[in-house]
Amino acid sequence: MKAPDYPHTRATLYADARPATASTAADRWALRRIRAQLGAAAVRLALWDGFVLEPARGPALGTISVRTRRALFSWLWDPELNFGEGYMEGSIDIHGDLPRLLEESYRALPSPGARPWWRSQPVNDVRAAREHVHRHYDLGNDFYRLWLDREMVYTCAYFPERTASLEDAQLAKMDLVCRKLRLQPGERVVEAGCGWGSLALHMARHYGVTVRAFNLSSEQIAYARARAREEAMAWRVEFVEDDYRNITGQYDAFVSVGMLEHVGKPDYGTFGDVMHRSLNGAGRALLHFIGRNQAAPLNAWIRKRIFPGAYAPTLREVFERVLEPHDFSVLDVENLRLHYAKTLEHWRLRFDRSRGAAVAMFDETFARAWELYLAGSQASFSTGGMQLFQVVAARGAANSIPWTRVSG
Amino acid sequence: MKAPDYPHTRATLYADARPATASTAADRWALRRIRAQLGAAAVRLALWDGFVLEPARGPALGTISVRTRRALFSWLWDPELNFGEGYMEGSIDIHGDLPRLLEESYRALPSPGARPWWRSQPVNDVRAAREHVHRHYDLGNDFYRLWLDREMVYTCAYFPERTASLEDAQLAKMDLVCRKLRLQPGERVVEAGCGWGSLALHMARHYGVTVRAFNLSSEQIAYARARAREEAMAWRVEFVEDDYRNITGQYDAFVSVGMLEHVGKPDYGTFGDVMHRSLNGAGRALLHFIGRNQAAPLNAWIRKRIFPGAYAPTLREVFERVLEPHDFSVLDVENLRLHYAKTLEHWRLRFDRSRGAAVAMFDETFARAWELYLAGSQASFSTGGMQLFQVVAARGAANSIPWTRVSG
Repeated sequence: MKAPDYPHTRATLYADARPATASTAADRWALRRIRAQLGAAAVRLALWDGFVLEPARGPALGTISVRTRRALFSWLWDPELNFGEGYMEGSIDIHGDLPRLLEESYRALPSPGARPWWRSQPVNDVRAAREHVHRHYDLGNDFYRLWLDREMVYTCAYFPERTASLEDAQLAKMDLVCRKLRLQPGERVVEAGCGWGSLALHMARHYGVTVRAFNLSSEQIAYARARAREEAMAWRVEFVEDDYRNITGQYDAFVSVGMLEHVGKPDYGTFGDVMHRSLNGAGRALLHFIGRNQAAPLNAWIRKRIFPGAYAPTLREVFERVLEPHDFSVLDVENLRLHYAKTLEHWRLRFDRSRGAAVAMFDETFARAWELYLAGSQASFSTGGMQLFQVVAARGAANSIPWTRVSG
Repeated sequence: MKAPDYPHTRATLYADARPATASTAADRWALRRIRAQLGAAAVRLALWDGFVLEPARGPALGTISVRTRRALFSWLWDPELNFGEGYMEGSIDIHGDLPRLLEESYRALPSPGARPWWRSQPVNDVRAAREHVHRHYDLGNDFYRLWLDREMVYTCAYFPERTASLEDAQLAKMDLVCRKLRLQPGERVVEAGCGWGSLALHMARHYGVTVRAFNLSSEQIAYARARAREEAMAWRVEFVEDDYRNITGQYDAFVSVGMLEHVGKPDYGTFGDVMHRSLNGAGRALLHFIGRNQAAPLNAWIRKRIFPGAYAPTLREVFERVLEPHDFSVLDVENLRLHYAKTLEHWRLRFDRSRGAAVAMFDETFARAWELYLAGSQASFSTGGMQLFQVVAARGAANSIPWTRVSG
C-alpha cells in the first residue's frame, strides 16, 4: 500500500550523493540567514561541500546538513514548510539526536503567533473530514501495530510514574478518563472519534456502561468491531462508521479523545451543538485534545504531510465556541503536555525499531516523514509549543457534579 | 460606625406597618407580571392588603410579600436592582428559607446573558479601586469577626468532607493552594490582595517561604501586620498597603485569592503584565476567583450595595487577557462552586447568630442587605449562576511543571 502524497524514492537518491558544485557566496549567505533564525540553538549547519557554521556559543549537539541548493533556498524561503520537505526527501539530513536537536531549534524560534498570514485553514465539511481521516488513519492497521501499544491507543498516555511502560500508561489514561467522567454501571456513553475502539471497550468492560462510538475511518471501525466480537462486548459497545455530526440520542457522558484537533475551528460551534443535544441534564463531557497557549495555525508541514485539516486550539477558543453557547460549566482542566512528550518518545523509539518494516510497507521518504513528525511532536510538547488538555464539563445547573476531583 | 450608602431606619419603619390602601387592578397586574417572570418557581407572592398569587404548580416554599406600591413597581421595572433595594429597606419581605427561595427564583430566571444593555461597568483606576476596597473591606474587623472563621478568611473554603467545620475547610483551602503552587522552603511568593493575611502567614509558617502580600484595605493590613508580629512571622511576611499594580521584584510564585473579581475587566491586561514581570522563569501562578460560564455583568444590586466595581469573568476572558499575551500555560483548573455555596451557608448561619451585634454596629437596613447578599450568593453558587475557579499557570517554556496534580 502506498500512502498518498508522499513523494518516494528521492530520499535514497540523496542519501549518499553530493552535488558536484562547490557552495557559492549566495549559498553561504543563505545558510548564515538560517543560522541567524536559529539564534542561540546549539546546532551545527553544514552545506553539501563541507562548508560549516558552528553555533554562536558552546559545542553543537549535532549537525543539520543541507545537500542541495534547492533545499537550502526552499528552507530559507519557508522554513516551517520546507525544512520538513527537505528532511523527508533526504536533501536535508540530521546527525545527532533528532528530538533533542528539534527541541534546541524550537526554543530558539519565535513564538507561533508570528507566523505568515497566508497560513489559513479551510472548513472541514463532512466529505473533507472523511478524506482527511482516510489519509492518516487508513494507512493500515498493520502499520500502526508496528509502533503503538497493544491496545492500539493513538493519543497521549498518562504516566503515573515516568518509568511506566507505554502499555500501562495507556491503560492508566483510559482509567483516568473514566474516573474523571465518574462513569456508573448502566450509564450510556457516546464517543466522538473512537480510534481502534480501545477506550469504548475499556469503559464497557471496566465501568459497566454501554457505548456508541463514532469514527470515520473504515479501517479502524472494522478493527474495533472485530475486537468487540472477539471479546464478547458487541452487545455493550456499538461502533458506528459515521461523522460525529450524525450522533443521535441522549447520553450520560460524551467523550472525545484526540478528535477535536480534526474538527477544525469553524466547526467548533457545531461540535458544541452536538455535545449539547447528546447530553442529558446530569450529563458530563470530557474533551481531550492537543492545544496551544496562543492561537496559531498548526505547523504547515504537519498539515501538508501528516494531518490535513488539523488545528490545535487554545482553551479560550474551545470554551468560547464549544462550551459557553450552551452554558456548559468547566469543572476541571488538566494539562498533560509532558505526558505527551513521553508518549511520543515511546512511539518514536518503537517506530525506529520497526523502521525497516515501515520502509517495506511504504518507502524511505514515508519513514523519514514519520520519524520527523514523531520527533518534532515530541519536541513541541517538551518545549511547551504544544499542550495536551483534558477538560471536564457539565451542564451549568447540574448539581450532581463532584465535590472533589480525581488525580492520576 | 456607619457603612456608607446604606439608607437606614426605613427597614424598621416597614417591618410592622401596612399602607392603608387596598391593592388596585394595576397593582395586581404588576404582581402577575412578576409571577410570570418567576415562571415555575414554587414561591407565593403577596401584596400589602393580603392579595396572594400562588405558584403555578405545587405548594409554595415560602412567601415574598410586597409592602408598598413603590416597591412593587420598582421591582417590576428593574428586578435585578430593585428586589434587593426593596428587601434591604424592608418594603419587600420574605417568609421561608431565604437561600432556598432565592435558589427557586434564580432557577426560573433567564440566563444572565439576557441582561439590559445599560449595565455597563467603569474602569477601576487606582483611586476608584481604593475607594471600592474601603467601602467593603473597611467595614471594621469587628464586624467580619462576627461571622468569619478564626483565621478571618473571606474567600471560598475547601471542604474535604461536606461536614467539615468552616475553620477546618479554610485551613484545607489554604493548604490546597500551597500544594497546587508546589511551594518549596526558601521560595519567594508575592500575593496580590491578601485580606487579613491568613494565607500569607500560612504559607510562611507551613511551607517555609517568604511572602510579600499587597492589599489596599488599611484595616486589613493593620490587622495582618499585628498578627505577623504576634506570631513572630514579620521577618518572613511583609504586608504592603498598596495596589497590586505597584508590585515590584521577581518571585517563584504569584498568588491571588479573591481579588481578580475586583480588578475589573478593562484592567486584566495590566493584571497579566504584573504577573508576567513578577514571575521568574520557573514561576507558578495561582488565581482563585469568582467566575461565570457566560460573560455578564455582576448583579446590579450587588454592585450598588456590596461590591462596587466588581466583575466575575469567564475563564475565556481571563485566559485571553491575562494569560495568553505572555504565553502562560494553563496547567490546572478546578471549579469549586459547591464549596462556595457551602462556605456561604456557614457565613450566613454565623451572621444570623450575630445579627443583633451587626444591627448594633450598623442598623437593620445594613443587616438585611448583608443577609440578602450572603443568601443570594449562596443561591447563585448552588444553582450554577456563579462559579469558583482555581487556575494554576506557569511559563510556556517551564519544564519544572509537575507530572501529576494534587487533589484535596
